[in-house]
Amino acid sequence: MKLKCDGLALSEAVLKVSKAMPIKRNNSILEGIKLQAKDGFLTLTATDLELSIIKKIPAEVSIEGEVLVIGRYFADFVKSLTDDTITLESTGGQNITIKYGDNEGFIKCMEVDEYPSVDRIDEKSAVVLAKEDLKDAINKVAFAASQEDSRPILKGVLFEIQNGLLTAVALDGYRLALCKKRVINEVEDSKVIIPARTLTEVLRVIDEGEDEVRLIFGEGKLMVEINNTQLISRLIGGDYINYRNIISTGFATTAVFSRAQFADSIGRASIISRTDKNNTIRLEVKEGLIMIDSRSEYGNVHESIVAEVEGKDVVISFNCKYLQDVLGAVADEFIKMNIKTGNSPCIFDQVDGEDYLFLVLPMRAGN
Amino acid sequence: MKLKCDGLALSEAVLKVSKAMPIKRNNSILEGIKLQAKDGFLTLTATDLELSIIKKIPAEVSIEGEVLVIGRYFADFVKSLTDDTITLESTGGQNITIKYGDNEGFIKCMEVDEYPSVDRIDEKSAVVLAKEDLKDAINKVAFAASQEDSRPILKGVLFEIQNGLLTAVALDGYRLALCKKRVINEVEDSKVIIPARTLTEVLRVIDEGEDEVRLIFGEGKLMVEINNTQLISRLIGGDYINYRNIISTGFATTAVFSRAQFADSIGRASIISRTDKNNTIRLEVKEGLIMIDSRSEYGNVHESIVAEVEGKDVVISFNCKYLQDVLGAVADEFIKMNIKTGNSPCIFDQVDGEDYLFLVLPMRAGN
Repeated sequence: MKLKCDGLALSEAVLKVSKAMPIKRNNSILEGIKLQAKDGFLTLTATDLELSIIKKIPAEVSIEGEVLVIGRYFADFVKSLTDDTITLESTGGQNITIKYGDNEGFIKCMEVDEYPSVDRIDEKSAVVLAKEDLKDAINKVAFAASQEDSRPILKGVLFEIQNGLLTAVALDGYRLALCKKRVINEVEDSKVIIPARTLTEVLRVIDEGEDEVRLIFGEGKLMVEINNTQLISRLIGGDYINYRNIISTGFATTAVFSRAQFADSIGRASIISRTDKNNTIRLEVKEGLIMIDSRSEYGNVHESIVAEVEGKDVVISFNCKYLQDVLGAVADEFIKMNIKTGNSPCIFDQVDGEDYLFLVLPMRAGN
Repeated sequence: MKLKCDGLALSEAVLKVSKAMPIKRNNSILEGIKLQAKDGFLTLTATDLELSIIKKIPAEVSIEGEVLVIGRYFADFVKSLTDDTITLESTGGQNITIKYGDNEGFIKCMEVDEYPSVDRIDEKSAVVLAKEDLKDAINKVAFAASQEDSRPILKGVLFEIQNGLLTAVALDGYRLALCKKRVINEVEDSKVIIPARTLTEVLRVIDEGEDEVRLIFGEGKLMVEINNTQLISRLIGGDYINYRNIISTGFATTAVFSRAQFADSIGRASIISRTDKNNTIRLEVKEGLIMIDSRSEYGNVHESIVAEVEGKDVVISFNCKYLQDVLGAVADEFIKMNIKTGNSPCIFDQVDGEDYLFLVLPMRAGN
């Protein structure tokens, strides 16, 4: 293999594909980045078997070939180069020589034949979304997916398409997030479960692209292609939880209030409550007011904010972190809280419309 | 105690004095911040017994008094407030009430009588330095002080004044840093050892002050006063190492080269050498060139930069981190390296002048 390419383009490409390398370092072959020189392009590939990222950059290829470099050393080294043009050269694939100006470095390579093959997906069916819609859906929903390995399906986000409408849903047993967006093209109804981590990586590359994003599905996989970068992700198998059954209806109390004001108040309340393992804050909803209380051995906070309250007075307690996650995912000026009882799931949703919805379980007992 | 003050001023003051609170949290009285309301001012004090910071802000004091708040909760809470005016009130000193708008928080207090007294130093003798000179001296020298507790004296920086010239020196057994600055006022010759950490904190507050900084010494302590903020630090007792005996003279080889170019080269070399516990890089100084080599099981790097070399060819190896610290402390375009032999201390100094000097021990043996 021998090629010349632009130093900055190489550095950016390495940084991009590195996101698919596994975080745990166990000297496995997956800590490599595969470099392929062919047809006027250098193609970089990294994968952790769940998520793969492929990035192509233009290159002046004089000898075609492929090598598997040790990802973290290659990435750091390439990032430290200041020269415009970089020459990469490898004979036999034991080392790669990186030439820059009059200087050179050698980085050890691994056995490229042992690297798993990462294939593009042929585009048979695609779901096309406005870029801003996809970003918004990921931002509103992905945080609520489970971090635990105990129920793998909950580490994913359900993408359910019905009648041209995408409903994205994530839940972890304590809270649920849901967001609806219009699909631009005509597609059949379908359901897939996409790993939340894949969607978070999609967010990182999405800003460069055009106004629309194509989600290409096939063979248990998803591919997203943006500006010569392809993210290919395994989908999660199995049936997702029937989320419709979880979302309660029929509320005794609703309250509409300023999102920012509530966020400020519970931010202060959490400074006191964070020493408590449940991070409990107590809300009392009364005519025209929400009173916010937190207490711990270090102090206590009482605040109240104005709210348009309808229905019965109610007291309900939450893990403050779950409320903060919800408020962080919404940009609207006002938000609506819907309460059945102090011990029932509480729903936060849009004041006018049904574009999104968050369900949060209250803390039991106490109050 | 009862007072009103500006929310932003309070928040900034708390942030500033917090730097003197001990980092280790062991529920001691030192985790408090002392608040004193008197004569139209609120005075905040924090100390870890080595370093103390006192900050005064204007306040509308209606009842004088003092309390000891739990520092980290008070600091976070005050920082989270958005109101212009804050009321602080305490009856009996068990709690402090923080009132903001229509809301309020209570933070637990500790026994203020148990808090160590932190006294200002009466100004009998002061050393006056240009602000930029003091900043430069700290930046050039403090990094070389030891981090280890085994020889407390080496955790300090020697400030030696002779004939109106300040020489600041730090060393840790592997390297030494020295910087000279002119003292503005007329002072007697003297020597003190200032904890490196104190000097680092001085850097944080120094930017607000005027063009000159007064270092006030007395009773084994140093006080620096900038814009109503006082840093008071214990000095380190004992005799400092006779650094003049350490600084070698009479060199076989000198080389002058671009600081930035050398820094770039050793930066790349260190990516490879960092997996080695000694982080070794090898320099070969030859006519007109410095060749830089590093190698590890993951690869190797060869670079060369042009240099004005005088004297014998020489090979010398260093822990790369020590070179990077030196290069990071200097802003000059060129720097001079002075070598006696490959096994002797190497000196980096100014090309024209004697304002600063760094000594670095080479790696033994190998090369």
